[in-house]
Amino acid sequence: MRNILVIGAGRSASSLIQYLLTKSEQENLIITIGDLSLELAEKKAKKHPNARPIAFDIFNSFQRQEEIQKADIVISMLPAHMHIEVAKDCLTFGKHMVTASYISSQMQELDKEAKEKGVILMNEIGLDPGIDHMSAMKILDEIRAKGGNVLLFESFCGGLVAPESDNNLWNYKFTWNPRNVVLAGQGGAAKFIQEGTYKYIPYNKLFRRTEFLEVEDYGRFEAYANRDSLKYRSVYGLDDALTVYRGTIRRVGYSRAWDILVQLGMTDDSYTIEDSENMTYREFTNSFLPYHPTDTVEIKLRHAQKIDQDDIIWDKLLELDLFSKKKVELKNATPAQILEKILSEKWKLEPNDKDMIVMYHKFGYELNGEKHQIDSTMVCIGDDQVNTAMSKTVGLPAAMATLRILKGEIKTPGVQLPISKEVYTPILNELEEYGIIFKEIDVPYLGYNPNNISS
Amino acid sequence: MRNILVIGAGRSASSLIQYLLTKSEQENLIITIGDLSLELAEKKAKKHPNARPIAFDIFNSFQRQEEIQKADIVISMLPAHMHIEVAKDCLTFGKHMVTASYISSQMQELDKEAKEKGVILMNEIGLDPGIDHMSAMKILDEIRAKGGNVLLFESFCGGLVAPESDNNLWNYKFTWNPRNVVLAGQGGAAKFIQEGTYKYIPYNKLFRRTEFLEVEDYGRFEAYANRDSLKYRSVYGLDDALTVYRGTIRRVGYSRAWDILVQLGMTDDSYTIEDSENMTYREFTNSFLPYHPTDTVEIKLRHAQKIDQDDIIWDKLLELDLFSKKKVELKNATPAQILEKILSEKWKLEPNDKDMIVMYHKFGYELNGEKHQIDSTMVCIGDDQVNTAMSKTVGLPAAMATLRILKGEIKTPGVQLPISKEVYTPILNELEEYGIIFKEIDVPYLGYNPNNISS
Repeated sequence: MRNILVIGAGRSASSLIQYLLTKSEQENLIITIGDLSLELAEKKAKKHPNARPIAFDIFNSFQRQEEIQKADIVISMLPAHMHIEVAKDCLTFGKHMVTASYISSQMQELDKEAKEKGVILMNEIGLDPGIDHMSAMKILDEIRAKGGNVLLFESFCGGLVAPESDNNLWNYKFTWNPRNVVLAGQGGAAKFIQEGTYKYIPYNKLFRRTEFLEVEDYGRFEAYANRDSLKYRSVYGLDDALTVYRGTIRRVGYSRAWDILVQLGMTDDSYTIEDSENMTYREFTNSFLPYHPTDTVEIKLRHAQKIDQDDIIWDKLLELDLFSKKKVELKNATPAQILEKILSEKWKLEPNDKDMIVMYHKFGYELNGEKHQIDSTMVCIGDDQVNTAMSKTVGLPAAMATLRILKGEIKTPGVQLPISKEVYTPILNELEEYGIIFKEIDVPYLGYNPNNISS
Repeated sequence: MRNILVIGAGRSASSLIQYLLTKSEQENLIITIGDLSLELAEKKAKKHPNARPIAFDIFNSFQRQEEIQKADIVISMLPAHMHIEVAKDCLTFGKHMVTASYISSQMQELDKEAKEKGVILMNEIGLDPGIDHMSAMKILDEIRAKGGNVLLFESFCGGLVAPESDNNLWNYKFTWNPRNVVLAGQGGAAKFIQEGTYKYIPYNKLFRRTEFLEVEDYGRFEAYANRDSLKYRSVYGLDDALTVYRGTIRRVGYSRAWDILVQLGMTDDSYTIEDSENMTYREFTNSFLPYHPTDTVEIKLRHAQKIDQDDIIWDKLLELDLFSKKKVELKNATPAQILEKILSEKWKLEPNDKDMIVMYHKFGYELNGEKHQIDSTMVCIGDDQVNTAMSKTVGLPAAMATLRILKGEIKTPGVQLPISKEVYTPILNELEEYGIIFKEIDVPYLGYNPNNISS
């Protein structure tokens, strides 16, 4: 029997644990499921004979080291900043490790020792980061194999609500950490390169410079720029590409309405609002508008943001209860925290709601003097509230990688991310069995030149 | 003879040193002028027999303590963060100290010891902070003395170019630290209280919510909110006032045009621009606009910011050379640093230019059931490039306070700011001799209520 230690049994671990349990008899696996909450671990274990749920405290170094020694491989589904202690123990005891998180600088520092000890520390093998790396590298490698020169790479991803559960004006519900959605784009300008020119979009313009994306059977989406478009330029071998752009997908119209909240100052997380606890939602909204003894909060907001009364944006704002007399009931809260609370009431996934992941890559390249473009898209719909699209797309790649490392099919040691054929080919193939399928189509290369468009 | 040690002989110390030298014979003063640059100290000393210019390094603790021991009182005109070491030495040797800077928390911690030792550490006795405190407290004390209840306090200050030297479209030149002008308003929302309601203006709206101010003989100005309007609410005894607002004065139209630079992202100081050194001003501007193979930077900017071609804002932008092919020539520069360079070329004070300080206070109060308002204004024009309005208004109050402390007329020990009658009455009176005169007028109380306006 081979022992897999899964640390963290939260929402994102559901599909991962289920996959491993399903494979456990055929593959002779014992799955130790450790979580601070034994109840949660037991729930995810589903009384499966090959599951061993335990109460597990990551900060108890004795228990941590004891369990890691017993394991053949460790999967950490903890928040990203908690991986490092696990990784160090894995190195000490010569155990492989898998995470779905970005490689931190602390993690990167372990690379040399991991290589010397033949230990694989596989990271960024979830959705984004994860499936984006694998699906992009597959096509980039194919283009290069036939002698093509990549000119343009754009990559978009979004966690949304599935069409059948999409019943609000924003076409959006929280399917992941709401705080990250409220703070999206803050902390510096979005930077990317477009036709060879570096471009910077300040936060206050971010949601007004979107790009449209059409996905077959799903209609039109929009995307705003990520802050870190150039992060993987070198990793993907795109240092000479003229355009490298990464973005976040929403339904069309979300960003224009979201921008109103940004412009009002409601997404600010840098200061607290006076007496926020006893304030109404209406007073919260009013605190960003000039005083007037008789004008309503509504007309002041419409005037400040130049919103016509028949503009759909206005209905979107009304839908959020921004003008209601509900109490905020949060002590010393920042605008962003108050907004998160207001949105959470409106954008909550209901028990029967399903989520949806959309990914879209564009690859522009030149081959034999001609320009071409491949668009690659993937849409994944959640099965239910447990096996959400998010849980499947984050957990399945990590689970599949774990099994392949155990079986010796993935064998390159060191601090890794899934950009090599050895890793992405089998995992992308297996993901198709679970409905995570990329559709590739050849389209005319447009770039950003209207001469291309008119030709 | 009494020995005054002036540390720092930069621009802001000119009028201060000249005042002390002029008084030195009558008052038996020796003025030790210490600066890192002996040349600068000598220049300010003007070979006056009672001046003793020395090369002085604040980080040389032996020299620092030696000079402080020799002095009867110390004036620190250093950058604010450097005062604390001087203050500690002053406490050790029982010497009084004067600064024109905000009281830091480190400085405040010395209060108890200063009181025990009978040492005066007088701070915030320059222009803003300084003259604003004194002129505001004078009227607030007068209103309270006659039994009035203060409802509204608004206070505005600006460093501008004098009308006779005002020859650009922005009606603005740099008369003080340009970096602070470029970064003005950043780092959090502007917070104030208006008719009993806390209000927050995010940075991206700051320059669009201005207030107009009329100053007799000088015409119309505008003001945008300071970040810290509530800082002195308790100090001024205004905890129950319905409206407390502080702002920065510019000529009308400045803010609307400045907002374009803010919206483009040019004032951002949080990241560096790629290859800034070799970029032209035009390329800098273009980096904030979408790529297009044929559209000009001009039309893209006008479209992005919705600027009509006959809008004066457009002429203001053209005046700044934002579209020129001049090289930036700054390595690894932030947008704010590049913008500062561009503006410094255009907004430089010429040798014969004069600067101007404008201060405007509004006091609304209730007395015997009736509402009243006093507006108090001060305009100071610089004499020349040495005795600028800024140098006079910063340096003279500090110099006058120094002399009064020496003579025992100001005697309350501890970490102080000039809000008591003992300090402000004689200094405001003496400032009038130097042309720094407040004009007070009674006006109808308007508040923010149109019923008041129509009545």
